[in-house]
Amino acid sequence: MTDIERDVREVAERARDAAADLAPLTRAAKDAALLAVADALVARADEIVKANAEDTAKARENGTSEAMIDRLTLTAERVGAIADAVREVTELPDPVGEVVRGNVLPNGLEVRQVRVPLGVIGIIYEGRPNVTVDAAALCLKSGNAALLRGSSSAYSSNTVITDVIRGALEGTEVPVDAVQMVPGLSRDSVKHLMRARGLVDVLIPRGGASLIQTVVNESTVPVIETGTGNCHVYVDEAADLDRALAITMNSKVQRCSVCNTAETLLVHAGVADAFLPRALAALKEAGVTVHGDERVRGYDDAVVAATEEDWTTEYLSLDLAARVVDSLDEAVAHIRAYSSSHTEAIVTDSQSAARRFVSRVDSAAVMVNASTRFTDGGEFGFGAEIGISTQKLHARGPMGLPEMTSTKYVVTGEGHVR
Amino acid sequence: MTDIERDVREVAERARDAAADLAPLTRAAKDAALLAVADALVARADEIVKANAEDTAKARENGTSEAMIDRLTLTAERVGAIADAVREVTELPDPVGEVVRGNVLPNGLEVRQVRVPLGVIGIIYEGRPNVTVDAAALCLKSGNAALLRGSSSAYSSNTVITDVIRGALEGTEVPVDAVQMVPGLSRDSVKHLMRARGLVDVLIPRGGASLIQTVVNESTVPVIETGTGNCHVYVDEAADLDRALAITMNSKVQRCSVCNTAETLLVHAGVADAFLPRALAALKEAGVTVHGDERVRGYDDAVVAATEEDWTTEYLSLDLAARVVDSLDEAVAHIRAYSSSHTEAIVTDSQSAARRFVSRVDSAAVMVNASTRFTDGGEFGFGAEIGISTQKLHARGPMGLPEMTSTKYVVTGEGHVR
Repeated sequence: MTDIERDVREVAERARDAAADLAPLTRAAKDAALLAVADALVARADEIVKANAEDTAKARENGTSEAMIDRLTLTAERVGAIADAVREVTELPDPVGEVVRGNVLPNGLEVRQVRVPLGVIGIIYEGRPNVTVDAAALCLKSGNAALLRGSSSAYSSNTVITDVIRGALEGTEVPVDAVQMVPGLSRDSVKHLMRARGLVDVLIPRGGASLIQTVVNESTVPVIETGTGNCHVYVDEAADLDRALAITMNSKVQRCSVCNTAETLLVHAGVADAFLPRALAALKEAGVTVHGDERVRGYDDAVVAATEEDWTTEYLSLDLAARVVDSLDEAVAHIRAYSSSHTEAIVTDSQSAARRFVSRVDSAAVMVNASTRFTDGGEFGFGAEIGISTQKLHARGPMGLPEMTSTKYVVTGEGHVR
Repeated sequence: MTDIERDVREVAERARDAAADLAPLTRAAKDAALLAVADALVARADEIVKANAEDTAKARENGTSEAMIDRLTLTAERVGAIADAVREVTELPDPVGEVVRGNVLPNGLEVRQVRVPLGVIGIIYEGRPNVTVDAAALCLKSGNAALLRGSSSAYSSNTVITDVIRGALEGTEVPVDAVQMVPGLSRDSVKHLMRARGLVDVLIPRGGASLIQTVVNESTVPVIETGTGNCHVYVDEAADLDRALAITMNSKVQRCSVCNTAETLLVHAGVADAFLPRALAALKEAGVTVHGDERVRGYDDAVVAATEEDWTTEYLSLDLAARVVDSLDEAVAHIRAYSSSHTEAIVTDSQSAARRFVSRVDSAAVMVNASTRFTDGGEFGFGAEIGISTQKLHARGPMGLPEMTSTKYVVTGEGHVR
């Protein structure tokens, strides 16, 4: 066993022990700890900002873009906002202990299926150091120990933030080791985290497609796949075209860098003449480059030729693939072939078209006459989300606190035997 | 790509297409198909029994034990019972379409979280050919395509059974490719099944610990771990000793070859003198070999010395490890250290002891004053089970039809944008 493997396993074992003590804590105890964390973040904002300055200076030396540096930057004000987000988590209901189902069996045995914490959650993330706090807060609230592995570009910030959180926990009922950073900056430390099956209950990778693919392929710890969004808007033959235009534009341009933004527009041939000239003009006006099939290109010379790759690409930019289809079923077939199964929208006033689209499209969220941008824990009223699952097991779509739990059957009898 | 890899992927792709057509089918269509399958099994029982005779003859040549051969053997009567089990599945409610939660957001968007099939379920199993039918029936009822990989010892039986099922589906709305055998008998074909991520949605291994470990370690397809049961009975200081005796005996001897049987008995020191002599006598009477720690051995010379290995062993035989503990917390610590997290029972009349045990023990099922043998889909009233999950993600404990589904958010608006 190498030093780094030993270090990672030691941290995971401490997390496991902490999880056992954390699981039975009351909501009151967990909320009190979260408020202590929020206070400590504000009280020690200067230290955090100073450490963050080291990260941003290093990023600048490495020629990182100013947009990325802005995402990395913490100010006292931003730390205050992060602390406020922790306070908001205290207002969310505690999922632990919820009776999911329960009944009395014919023989008198009482069966209850009760929500319990998952145990130890490993979170591997890129970019912004606020994720360190958000993830820790959601884990604590749901009774889980957090093993945090952030980006090396935010290493100094994350180190101080974790120290602040752990310092705040010292005066509370929550064990300090409920929040730990995974030691080491090398890929090796991630590798050992992915192999810590039996110590770590689940890994949630948050970041780009390549990070997520690596974790999915290499981890023996169960993974919840998050985030990749190749979302579609389908404008049906029976669409209200004003709605179709508003939904297309909102889905593409309201915030194009996030996973629930639309990347492909599918238009029924029956409304292409009426819809595409308006849509292409509005998209051009908004600075969007359209990558169209031959039929779309017939409406506007500015449309560039779509390649096979365009149908699978999550642009996360002001680009949009577009295609004319001859039927709803052709739209569904396109989506089934190319979608990442995050979110698809249909715009239609036909009840039967909506029903068919909803039942045939196999994605985490299906929107009828609404923007793809609504697939979001905040919009859904979950209050906070740890990510958006694009897998089918355990959790699908925005994951709030209940999705960070497992269940346990509690069966009570009075000497019952079979 | 080797031939076998190509064959496995082709079968998985056909399953994927079949799953798309199967998902939107009504309960009536699925139940009609299941009844056709049940009828066909009975009508073609002769063919099945004949193929089965080839398997049992081969098993005998290979020196397989008569007990194993009995498990493998199909008679016309047994085929009839298998068909009846399929008919019983038609009486279970269809989980697909159930609205798990739903509400209207402040902006008027209607959000519903609806159960949908998982898609393609791969089942890797050992032993008895009835699993071929049971698994196929549960997959079809829950709207999933089944990829079946049985034991090579039942190859002829499974081939004919699959042919009978597929033949029956031909006259129904369920696509024939909703039930397929994974081609090939080599380990390679299992390997390619485990790597068919994106085509297969979940793998459920059913069988011994080594099969399950292989699948867990090597699969990139998400796995639901089933079955390994190192279950504990803890007799508390405040136990009713008659109940404790009945629960100990039932948990160990009622059917010792199954996963929910008890493998370790923990006895509080405060009742050891009163309980252990009676328990050891009854266990001896029932033919159980007790592997005890030093304190247990003090009560009976017939108790053999327990080694560290005994605490982790799933005997599945008339063996029982036993230990005296000085407190409930010591019992909990033992269970946390050695259990496979399947089922643990406490026998106690103390409300606070029961509460502490239930909240501290992290297993799929916790029994209070009841036998461990009750952790079972049939006993819980699920009607049928595809296995008992010992993992925390997606499903934990007995898995019925709802556990064979995922969910989808359906969001309906009237032109809503952010």
